[in-house]
Amino acid sequence: MAIEIERKFLVAGDGWRAAVLSETRILQGYLANQATATVRARVAGERAYLTIKGPGNGLSRSEYEYPIPVADAEAMLRELAVSPPIEKTRHRVRVGDHVWDLDVFAGANAGLVMAEVELAAEDEVFARPDWLGEEVTGDPRYYNLSLARCPYLSW
Amino acid sequence: MAIEIERKFLVAGDGWRAAVLSETRILQGYLANQATATVRARVAGERAYLTIKGPGNGLSRSEYEYPIPVADAEAMLRELAVSPPIEKTRHRVRVGDHVWDLDVFAGANAGLVMAEVELAAEDEVFARPDWLGEEVTGDPRYYNLSLARCPYLSW
Repeated sequence: MAIEIERKFLVAGDGWRAAVLSETRILQGYLANQATATVRARVAGERAYLTIKGPGNGLSRSEYEYPIPVADAEAMLRELAVSPPIEKTRHRVRVGDHVWDLDVFAGANAGLVMAEVELAAEDEVFARPDWLGEEVTGDPRYYNLSLARCPYLSW
Repeated sequence: MAIEIERKFLVAGDGWRAAVLSETRILQGYLANQATATVRARVAGERAYLTIKGPGNGLSRSEYEYPIPVADAEAMLRELAVSPPIEKTRHRVRVGDHVWDLDVFAGANAGLVMAEVELAAEDEVFARPDWLGEEVTGDPRYYNLSLARCPYLSW
């Protein structure tokens, strides 16, 4: 189990592309969305994971993640997901002491680009690059679960 | 992924006790209960598992099961379960060509004893020992999920 502390931002412009360390195609969806827990299946490149997250509590929530076979994740996304899977390409981008995840969405969320940074403490200081747009941490519209149900192109 | 085909019965009497191969204490609970999938955490003896099952379809349903750390399962049961965990002792009992699971429930379900057999096909023939009581396959009151929500002692 881990406690996840992350902050999310919109992205303004392409200035981050020169600093990309790696990129990975992600297909993910939710097998459950209860008040007590969400259960996510994710295919990321050639790996797959099952992730259980506890209820959000400000910036932090408990998270349990396990590697699973890609074929299982694909079958669960096809048969058991509560809404259509999300497609995005995750770019790892170094900014100062942190590595950010920049998610360029596709499919029903095409046009949306979000940046996330994971922090070790809620008050940890981090560099803010000039491509960083509005902070959307805690805005329910930008939860991946919401983007599956009510995609960006439908806003 | 596996397809699970099982039949469940009540148990009449103690005649099965002489044929017990092993017994394991089980603590289990549900992290999610959606129409599309249930997600169960189970501690069985010194092991623990996360199990995702698809919607029931007659006797069969899809099932995905992964080993997880016992400490994770215990923490999830404590923090994320949708209802109080179920306690039972599972006895493996050989009857002819099949090994049955006899679950002797404790806690809020004390007094309930159920027998389950897993089959390779819905029409597979199996021996019916004399301790076998009424069949309850498909009776929603006896689903473990129902027993968590509405325990036997409250009937």
